[in-house]
Amino acid sequence: MARILLVTGGARSGKSTHAEARTLALGRPAHYIATAEIWDEEMAARIALHQARRGPEWTTHAEPLDLVKVLRATDDAPRLVDCLTLWLTNLMLGERDWEAAAKALLASLPDLAAPVVFVSNEVGLGIVPDNRLARDFRDAAGFLNQWVAAAADEVIFTVAGLPMKVK
Amino acid sequence: MARILLVTGGARSGKSTHAEARTLALGRPAHYIATAEIWDEEMAARIALHQARRGPEWTTHAEPLDLVKVLRATDDAPRLVDCLTLWLTNLMLGERDWEAAAKALLASLPDLAAPVVFVSNEVGLGIVPDNRLARDFRDAAGFLNQWVAAAADEVIFTVAGLPMKVK
Amino acid sequence: MARILLVTGGARSGKSTHAEARTLALGRPAHYIATAEIWDEEMAARIALHQARRGPEWTTHAEPLDLVKVLRATDDAPRLVDCLTLWLTNLMLGERDWEAAAKALLASLPDLAAPVVFVSNEVGLGIVPDNRLARDFRDAAGFLNQWVAAAADEVIFTVAGLPMKVK
Repeated sequence: MARILLVTGGARSGKSTHAEARTLALGRPAHYIATAEIWDEEMAARIALHQARRGPEWTTHAEPLDLVKVLRATDDAPRLVDCLTLWLTNLMLGERDWEAAAKALLASLPDLAAPVVFVSNEVGLGIVPDNRLARDFRDAAGFLNQWVAAAADEVIFTVAGLPMKVK
Repeated sequence: MARILLVTGGARSGKSTHAEARTLALGRPAHYIATAEIWDEEMAARIALHQARRGPEWTTHAEPLDLVKVLRATDDAPRLVDCLTLWLTNLMLGERDWEAAAKALLASLPDLAAPVVFVSNEVGLGIVPDNRLARDFRDAAGFLNQWVAAAADEVIFTVAGLPMKVK
Repeated sequence: MARILLVTGGARSGKSTHAEARTLALGRPAHYIATAEIWDEEMAARIALHQARRGPEWTTHAEPLDLVKVLRATDDAPRLVDCLTLWLTNLMLGERDWEAAAKALLASLPDLAAPVVFVSNEVGLGIVPDNRLARDFRDAAGFLNQWVAAAADEVIFTVAGLPMKVK
């Protein structure tokens, strides 16, 4: 069974940088699975910033929804899924059944051979949001993080670019 | 003197589940002290979700304001107070003196015999809220957490369902 | 080269209290470098609260923008910079080049002899803010924390008034 890592933390806490280093430590070259859907220039700028930092050792795959499929298609080398929270956003904005999708993802992990490093965001440590959608989203993100963390061999919480081992 | 535990963390970070396990490990059966006031259907649904997860080993007590009284009345077995942040909300929305209430709670702890596990929320790790009430609330919640943590024998910070020992 | 500490955490998580104790442990008396600009009564009240808690061992310096200058001028004793996040706020609201200022600050650290304890806020662990300025600010705050953490000899994350060692 594949080794599963989860790297979670706040915005700009160094999650992706840490997760990239951990993925390459598991094997080179590696797959980079981007879940971002490019909605506007701001997001395009963020993605370009991340891509510029990564080197030629990475093969990039864009997959906003079907993580089960892309994980099966990239089972020959370590892969980084960046990130679960954007994947959840895509599911919820697309009015998909995110719980079913999350459970299908978790169910698919034992069949994988190559390691998977998941990046995720912690979004539940601020004041309760005013609007219902944001509250539902932060609840879903929290549950998703718990489920993936339970399945993971190792869980890292990043603070100021530094890893704290949680599991 | 009673053993005091504090389990704090973000929304959907697994605080309650961890705190329930810790309470039952201190003794069975146990008391569940719910501080939630049911304002609307959304909150009723959240409470029902929590209750469904707990088993018959729990006696439930609903007490939105007077924690000193309910802790004295349940001093025959371990109890879980879920949660301090909703208690603070009730105090502030009811225009009570929350600092006096918090100090009375802390002053009452040394007289208790049975363990108390408090659940609390971390709400101060997002952007500064726009409105004054939310800023006052997050300040109060932060101070309350500090005070209870100082009085506690053990403090746990939960991330993605996993406990990190802080004290 | 000066010993550099970073104490980061949420609002009312006990960052300043911990940082003050750490600064005095490095030497007495010490300098307190306040970056706050007093905009309104609410902020004045917060500052008065902090000042009341500190004792006569501290010499206070108010410097909202030029940290390089004030660190050079106070290089005879340990100093506490409280805090980097307000400094960043001042730079961004004043439409200064915060990245250039941050890099100048980092470049100045190796020339210092006396220890520096920086206090900073974690602001990236809530829901993505609605407005662009807040998103830019939390990105900048996250990068600034990463850069200072990378330069620091020790990094502390405070939760409920308690220190967690990150580095």
